[in-house]
Amino acid sequence: MKIYDTEGFPNPARIRIALAEKGATDEVSFVPVDVMGGEHREDAFKSMNPDATVPCLELADGTHISQCNAITEFIDGHFEGPSLTGTSPKQRAQIAMMNLRAENGLLNAVGAYFHHATEGLGPKLEIDQCAEWGNKQKDVAAQTMAYLDTVLANQEYLAGDAFSVADITAFAGLAFADFAKVEVPEQLSNLTAWRAKVAARPSISG
Amino acid sequence: MKIYDTEGFPNPARIRIALAEKGATDEVSFVPVDVMGGEHREDAFKSMNPDATVPCLELADGTHISQCNAITEFIDGHFEGPSLTGTSPKQRAQIAMMNLRAENGLLNAVGAYFHHATEGLGPKLEIDQCAEWGNKQKDVAAQTMAYLDTVLANQEYLAGDAFSVADITAFAGLAFADFAKVEVPEQLSNLTAWRAKVAARPSISG
Repeated sequence: MKIYDTEGFPNPARIRIALAEKGATDEVSFVPVDVMGGEHREDAFKSMNPDATVPCLELADGTHISQCNAITEFIDGHFEGPSLTGTSPKQRAQIAMMNLRAENGLLNAVGAYFHHATEGLGPKLEIDQCAEWGNKQKDVAAQTMAYLDTVLANQEYLAGDAFSVADITAFAGLAFADFAKVEVPEQLSNLTAWRAKVAARPSISG
Repeated sequence: MKIYDTEGFPNPARIRIALAEKGATDEVSFVPVDVMGGEHREDAFKSMNPDATVPCLELADGTHISQCNAITEFIDGHFEGPSLTGTSPKQRAQIAMMNLRAENGLLNAVGAYFHHATEGLGPKLEIDQCAEWGNKQKDVAAQTMAYLDTVLANQEYLAGDAFSVADITAFAGLAFADFAKVEVPEQLSNLTAWRAKVAARPSISG
């Protein structure tokens, strides 16, 4: 099993954390993709993943899976270890819902700001910017941080009492916010405490 | 079990089709939400669903689930009938991937065009438009239609040989395209044939 990715990027980080949570990091070979050099937009890469994004999972039979939520679905079902996506229909739905709120409202919102309203990855890669949209999404990210803080006032993790993919997505979103210089307000004390707790997990602290 | 929604809207349609595919439509009470009157943005509704979107599922224990992919996760796991989200980890991942491509690249792209670059739902509701973004997303929708056509050259349904949530999402996306006057090119013959086949399913043709 291979994962084509770029170490340190936000979405690849989500998959690497999920693998570590499952104790499965050594089951995968990582193949570096030169995103800064535009490799993800070349035909060779797009024949594997028409989304032209990292990460992309390659199974032993040659099947390619892109889209982080699809990759984590595979990882969680394929490997042993505590469930990251839930077991009962209700739990799976709650985790999926919170994961999507964290993804759309935080990680992707920060990404839209970074790629559209800042220099992003530089002029060779950011060829279709929309600064107005990027700046609106920065506001969305701030609103989502405040919302997640209220959720964490009453529970240990974003989808309840157990750590899940929703926590991974939000954690990667906050890391991306730091990188993109989007403020993570310290007065969001529930969010800050949760972030410290998640950062201390062996899957992240290493 | 209740679903708060607005009949005829694209995302509510996804859930209604999924329920019909599972033979579970009669298990649910539908509660109309007056989106045109802004009910989804009032505090009473947002206390159930802070996303301020329809549909929203309410379970018998009072739990609320929003986000279509989370709701279909619940429906598919809770009710009997053929799986819409897959059974093996590989199949689940492939369906999730194609569903996300159809959602982000088609349904949400058409939605962004409609809400940002046209009159959308009118000036009282479309209070934060970004026409430049909306028009870019119209191009994304056109590209995604062409991509889905190539996928359907080699297989019966978007995620393989079986009908899945990916087909529901793409079908709703094309219906939204018609409504928003985004052209669905007839020369995309695989897509056109697939659409006619899906439209004839009892869950849709009624």
